[in-house]
Amino acid sequence: MKISALQQARYSYNPKLPLILRENIKEIRPVMGQATESATDQEALKQLFPNTYGLPKVSFEKGTNENIGKKMNVGVILSGGQAPGGHNVICGLYDALKNANPENTLYGFKGGPSGILEDKYTIMTDDFINEYRNTGGFDIIGSGRTKLETREQFEVCTQVCHKHDINAIVIIGGDDSNTNAAVLAEYFRAQGENICVVGCPKTIDGDLKNESIEASFGFDTACKTFAELIGNIERDANSAKKYWHFVRLMGRSASHIALECALQTQPNICLIGEEVEAKNQSIEEITNYIANVIAKRAANGDNFGVCLVPEGLIEFVPSLKILIREINDLLAKTEAEFNAIESVNDKIAFVSAKLSAQSAQVFASLPAEIKGQLLADRDPHGNVQVSKIETEKLLIQTVTKRLKEMKAEGTYTGKFSALNHFFGYEGRCAFPSNFDSDYCYSLGYNAALLLSANLTGYLSSVTQLSKPADQWQAGGIPITMMMNLEQRHGEMKPVIKKALVELDGEPFKYFEKNRETWAVETAFTFPGAIQYYGPSEVCDQSTITLKLEHQN
Amino acid sequence: MKISALQQARYSYNPKLPLILRENIKEIRPVMGQATESATDQEALKQLFPNTYGLPKVSFEKGTNENIGKKMNVGVILSGGQAPGGHNVICGLYDALKNANPENTLYGFKGGPSGILEDKYTIMTDDFINEYRNTGGFDIIGSGRTKLETREQFEVCTQVCHKHDINAIVIIGGDDSNTNAAVLAEYFRAQGENICVVGCPKTIDGDLKNESIEASFGFDTACKTFAELIGNIERDANSAKKYWHFVRLMGRSASHIALECALQTQPNICLIGEEVEAKNQSIEEITNYIANVIAKRAANGDNFGVCLVPEGLIEFVPSLKILIREINDLLAKTEAEFNAIESVNDKIAFVSAKLSAQSAQVFASLPAEIKGQLLADRDPHGNVQVSKIETEKLLIQTVTKRLKEMKAEGTYTGKFSALNHFFGYEGRCAFPSNFDSDYCYSLGYNAALLLSANLTGYLSSVTQLSKPADQWQAGGIPITMMMNLEQRHGEMKPVIKKALVELDGEPFKYFEKNRETWAVETAFTFPGAIQYYGPSEVCDQSTITLKLEHQN
Repeated sequence: MKISALQQARYSYNPKLPLILRENIKEIRPVMGQATESATDQEALKQLFPNTYGLPKVSFEKGTNENIGKKMNVGVILSGGQAPGGHNVICGLYDALKNANPENTLYGFKGGPSGILEDKYTIMTDDFINEYRNTGGFDIIGSGRTKLETREQFEVCTQVCHKHDINAIVIIGGDDSNTNAAVLAEYFRAQGENICVVGCPKTIDGDLKNESIEASFGFDTACKTFAELIGNIERDANSAKKYWHFVRLMGRSASHIALECALQTQPNICLIGEEVEAKNQSIEEITNYIANVIAKRAANGDNFGVCLVPEGLIEFVPSLKILIREINDLLAKTEAEFNAIESVNDKIAFVSAKLSAQSAQVFASLPAEIKGQLLADRDPHGNVQVSKIETEKLLIQTVTKRLKEMKAEGTYTGKFSALNHFFGYEGRCAFPSNFDSDYCYSLGYNAALLLSANLTGYLSSVTQLSKPADQWQAGGIPITMMMNLEQRHGEMKPVIKKALVELDGEPFKYFEKNRETWAVETAFTFPGAIQYYGPSEVCDQSTITLKLEHQN
Repeated sequence: MKISALQQARYSYNPKLPLILRENIKEIRPVMGQATESATDQEALKQLFPNTYGLPKVSFEKGTNENIGKKMNVGVILSGGQAPGGHNVICGLYDALKNANPENTLYGFKGGPSGILEDKYTIMTDDFINEYRNTGGFDIIGSGRTKLETREQFEVCTQVCHKHDINAIVIIGGDDSNTNAAVLAEYFRAQGENICVVGCPKTIDGDLKNESIEASFGFDTACKTFAELIGNIERDANSAKKYWHFVRLMGRSASHIALECALQTQPNICLIGEEVEAKNQSIEEITNYIANVIAKRAANGDNFGVCLVPEGLIEFVPSLKILIREINDLLAKTEAEFNAIESVNDKIAFVSAKLSAQSAQVFASLPAEIKGQLLADRDPHGNVQVSKIETEKLLIQTVTKRLKEMKAEGTYTGKFSALNHFFGYEGRCAFPSNFDSDYCYSLGYNAALLLSANLTGYLSSVTQLSKPADQWQAGGIPITMMMNLEQRHGEMKPVIKKALVELDGEPFKYFEKNRETWAVETAFTFPGAIQYYGPSEVCDQSTITLKLEHQN
């Protein structure tokens, strides 16, 4: 197998651990803190998690750990979309397990949560794991979107664990996967099974974040990769001085990626879904905002610029959100009939006739291309695949139209030529930045320590992330502490709340304070490609979001 | 102004010069080689360039240079599309001029060749230039697409040079710009003007290349940036195992970028325009080729992959080339009438009715989206803007259709889900790689030495580029030596021949030898982001194309 020079070089990178984790693993002792509570729904959660609610926070200190040497068989699962650093979580977990006891065995369940259900696995060895150190991707064992949530599935998990004498499972995933990890942990305890479950916080979207989790892994690398490209495009825009670039960015439920990229690159415009929703903005209002910035710049002779659009925007615009929901419901109900229709135009007519009057009007106002995309293949949950809707092209069209009107009104005299881009898949499997390499390795290493202390229902936690790694704090947070109850499909379900961009949070406030200047002046910054070697101020920085959130 | 940590760090990078150029500039002496000849059309070119044809090649040796200290005022022009490293050409030129005589003055003409015609310029100073060292973009003075080719323009150039007492001009551009540089050089000599003109070879497309120019600058950085993204996408494809990614890449007249990216990332499929043309392949044949690879992989259970498509492909397919030419001609002839038509559908009908029977049929077979793109705004020369045609989406559609047929025939049993990408603007203004930083700085430094020797009609030349910089050879090549005559708009014109991918060249042969393996096996390589620091094998490599072309 041919590998790149960088991949070869990255194999020998030594991820930085929090100081305490650099001790001999037999000299790291867990310390139980105070019992915890969830922020809301305490009683209900206590009833749902009688065995795992209210557990103490855990930290570590130097001191003899008598449990660390006992033999463990651990299973690890990657769940959901790829995020840079997943391989390092597994490497950290593996190294800690082997440091603790060379007899320990790590089972990698293949293809996501379905791997444990189907008993498909790889047993990790040094040779195997060494080929994945500090690399991107989830190809080490693959990932998948199966959810572990039913009692039947839990029973299969139990059988598979018994078969291999597995006494702990690490689930690497987002909010849903970690919620399910907590439910599985509770199930095992309730059944008297001595199998621990620990989660690790992954999402490149950055929406798994709260008081105990400062950042989910992968966000740093993905944002830096996107910011590299946006910076390059900004420099191109500023050199050619003739194009407006509309860049759509991954990030469905939350606009953290767009916001972080804006902080890193200072574009002329960045839309934030949460703000659009809070202000109940329509496409017309968004269009007017963009067109006005374009006109202001044109008045200065600058007929170029960069506009960032979070891919989830379309679901934050109230009228479009309703339209999408209606289409999802309609297609679920009329699946066979709809699929039998051959032409896109006929599909559009079919749907248009069945929408509510308001949604039919909104749908009619959209360009044909977007209509087609709204009717394209659903995801496995019957939802439209938002990442396939070219919202940036929609905006280019509405803005073009608006600028024509403004020209007629005499309020715009420039020349508008636009190009569109979408960045998502480019960032999910990049070589993890030093930050994500270190953070992920620490999360995995830390998870092994939690498991060896027989802790279950915990999330592996590394905090103080805006500081250098030697000041990071390692520990464990009971997952139930981060939960509340939400209505899902008509039932109240325990969930970890998705962290949206907070409009009164420091990152957004910084953006808000500066965006008018960035809009009119050309204040682009060019982060360049992620650097793994070289000066520390270039290689070891965390995100600006993290710095602003933890500046005090 | 806020700048990124990388930009700050790059300011202090010292570009590596060929050994001879590291000497005290007063101790570098030009050496005239043998008189040169063009490969063809010698007599005709001699007549067109009576004063500048047949000049000797120039190299340098250590020895006292008595001319170097004479005061010079030099103008520099960036011409055409951005390519990483343009700033460093100017920095190298500036530093050499200032080393030779601190009184020397460098005028940067703004906004491309029109800058000299309009006498818009910046006088370079240390403070000014230091902000652009080792950075991407052409924003230092801007670029433009005006061509310097008429006698009237040359007269204006003369006046502007007289006004500022400018005695030399450096033109940084592609094949056309360097051809025009040679014509301008000849004009000045014929007029008895003592103004020298030297060119520097720029194109990210890599199509300005011949026996004397091993690589044009920017190609290295652009390919590495695209290869980073393709590698990330490959890793994503191999992790998710459910998508085929169709990636369109910049490169209109030649497929060098696609080929180099394929060599760096080993995708399952890479189309090469020159091969399509040589084999006279139709869209159907290309579609069948892709569909067959997809089917083979599907038979192994691999319903994922990566396919690279050069943006120029559409013009290499004979039937589409004819169609595009017909549309270009038609729209030029019927401009007012065509522009008055409101709806895209009506425009399509209007054009369809006027095409030749064969082209009308080809046009009818295309998806509506592509039809619309073929009729969109022309470039200033009346040509369709190839970069705006989503050829990768066209192929996804034709392949989807073909796979359906194959499924019905029983020759395909997989699942095909495709995503599309286009990479172009992301790479044109990246921070230049160490290679491009060094190469460009050397080109500029070298240009100053040629000018100080009163040489004109030369291209700044740095060769042996596949070796470390200290083995590079600096010198000058008479531009006429690289010329031949070609028919352009009905006239025979001197041109520098565009270098297309040679099907019997080593880079293509290596690709050809391996592509069947890459198609079926998953042999992806992941180059990762360009590294500017760290191990030399990671930071200082040239392109694989260059290595294969100069391996002997």
